[in-house]
Amino acid sequence: MEERSRDLLKKLQLVQKRVDAELSRVRATKPYPPDLYDAAFHLILSGGKRVRPFLLLESAYLFGANDAVSLPPAVGLELLHNFTLIHDDIMDQDSYRRGVATTYAKYGVPIAITAGDALFSYLFSYIVEGMSRAGAPAELVTETIRVLSQASLRVCEGQAMDVMHSKYIADGSEYLQMIELKTASLFSAATEIGATIGGASSSQSGDILRYGRDLGMMFQIVDDMLGIYGDPEVTGKPVLSDLRRGKRTLILLHALEKCSKGNRERIRAVLGNPSVTQEEVTAVAEILVDLGSLDYARKVADTYRERALRSLSNLPKNEHRETLASLVDSLFTRKK
Amino acid sequence: MEERSRDLLKKLQLVQKRVDAELSRVRATKPYPPDLYDAAFHLILSGGKRVRPFLLLESAYLFGANDAVSLPPAVGLELLHNFTLIHDDIMDQDSYRRGVATTYAKYGVPIAITAGDALFSYLFSYIVEGMSRAGAPAELVTETIRVLSQASLRVCEGQAMDVMHSKYIADGSEYLQMIELKTASLFSAATEIGATIGGASSSQSGDILRYGRDLGMMFQIVDDMLGIYGDPEVTGKPVLSDLRRGKRTLILLHALEKCSKGNRERIRAVLGNPSVTQEEVTAVAEILVDLGSLDYARKVADTYRERALRSLSNLPKNEHRETLASLVDSLFTRKK
Repeated sequence: MEERSRDLLKKLQLVQKRVDAELSRVRATKPYPPDLYDAAFHLILSGGKRVRPFLLLESAYLFGANDAVSLPPAVGLELLHNFTLIHDDIMDQDSYRRGVATTYAKYGVPIAITAGDALFSYLFSYIVEGMSRAGAPAELVTETIRVLSQASLRVCEGQAMDVMHSKYIADGSEYLQMIELKTASLFSAATEIGATIGGASSSQSGDILRYGRDLGMMFQIVDDMLGIYGDPEVTGKPVLSDLRRGKRTLILLHALEKCSKGNRERIRAVLGNPSVTQEEVTAVAEILVDLGSLDYARKVADTYRERALRSLSNLPKNEHRETLASLVDSLFTRKK
Repeated sequence: MEERSRDLLKKLQLVQKRVDAELSRVRATKPYPPDLYDAAFHLILSGGKRVRPFLLLESAYLFGANDAVSLPPAVGLELLHNFTLIHDDIMDQDSYRRGVATTYAKYGVPIAITAGDALFSYLFSYIVEGMSRAGAPAELVTETIRVLSQASLRVCEGQAMDVMHSKYIADGSEYLQMIELKTASLFSAATEIGATIGGASSSQSGDILRYGRDLGMMFQIVDDMLGIYGDPEVTGKPVLSDLRRGKRTLILLHALEKCSKGNRERIRAVLGNPSVTQEEVTAVAEILVDLGSLDYARKVADTYRERALRSLSNLPKNEHRETLASLVDSLFTRKK
């Protein structure tokens, strides 16, 4: 287990390096207007786990694909993910992420909207040119574009549900629908594109797509747990901000369903209330633990963890399948 | 001339009908979440000239292309244009357009950002699927995607210059650079894609691309004239809002260069000043006329009009070339 996770870390760091180098190269080709590109690349060059590119590349390797064709969509997917983060931070009015100021906090709303749009605009021609240069058949390029475009639309659908959570997210099942759209879509797009590039059969594609989706579900539930109980020094996100903002998470929805009338009032009093004190939010976070809501969320995440691992069982048995399995465990136990 | 413009109007209305029917069909396939899709289709279904789809279709017809392959990118381009409008209206805080409330004014900023993103996300898979279904070779599809993606990035570059106009737009030449990016990019993308679909030679592609670009330049300068001197009842835009907002236009930049010190102060007093009275803005609009700034803008627009017409001269001489020529004159003399 120790060795597996060390191997995974090494592989992840290698991909991070390659993706970061490519992003820096791209940034250097885009000079004008500087404010736009400074803003567009501010967040993406400040770090990030690069989980989505890693997933795409490992899924492609699993089926024997080479690097040249897989790297452009892997980097394109990271551009897409960061475009959604730039816009999300505006909507959520989050002022920092990855330990740095968010794009809108640093550059203002109009430039941040445009910067997100610019990343998104760019990635399609980036993928077309990169894949074509690597000799990919045009059909593979159009299929990649189609999958990314549809995944991105689903992210928007999930984001709209999240923005209007009081209308669309009343219970756990609506929450799961929302994160399947908002988060799992890009995970399953990563694995689906990788498999397509690798020439997987349609049943293999289905398996790895489900793996990606379930991993994405697990990832988001763990993210929500860290959003309340994570160490801000480690996560790079503001303390307890998800509770202050009243963000609908599995933890909160479980608690609101299970709690007494008195506790319900104490919980509701902090949700979306910016003037609430640190002590009051912390007290509510403890109530949620006492209600078993954190354990409940962990259990649901664990179900998706198991499902993701099960989807791997019929896929080619090689080192990349091992890596994809280690990734599940590593993202389940992560601290940031 | 009378007959030419009647013919053009008929052709334009036909394209409007087809584009609108297709947009309504697409809207009906997208049910959930309703608020997102209501917002995404609010502006685009409230009308619009559909100049860009028309340009793409006529450019394709000029070189003998058929409809089935050209319609998906034509509609996709209109989706792209409307995505930029939804986001622009947020940045400019414009509350109505085409005589209806803007998307953010009706649905709020977060849903409007997401609605724009959704239109943009969708159009790529829409184009891939539509063109493939019509039998287009995959290389033609990837080329279409590449051109649209690059054009969209240029729109963002122009938009960033416009947002930060006090830094980036000090004189007429910077203004022309901005509108070439922000407006002309989608016009030239329309004609370039049409020509590619029609199988134009590279020299023909260059000609029609320049035609599109110069038409776009003319279009934007006329737009700016209408933004100050147009009839709000006809344009569907707020009275004199471009002056109130201090938007950099050729008219304003010319006036600021030519005017006396006293007039400069009177002009600067209304720019970006929301509390200014109707009388004060009207007085400034009259000063600009007296300074010859409106005439100057019309003259520059006329130069682009002539250049656009000249670019047509080496292209196939058929009814579609006639239509593209009529379009130039019609957009030059338009009232909205």
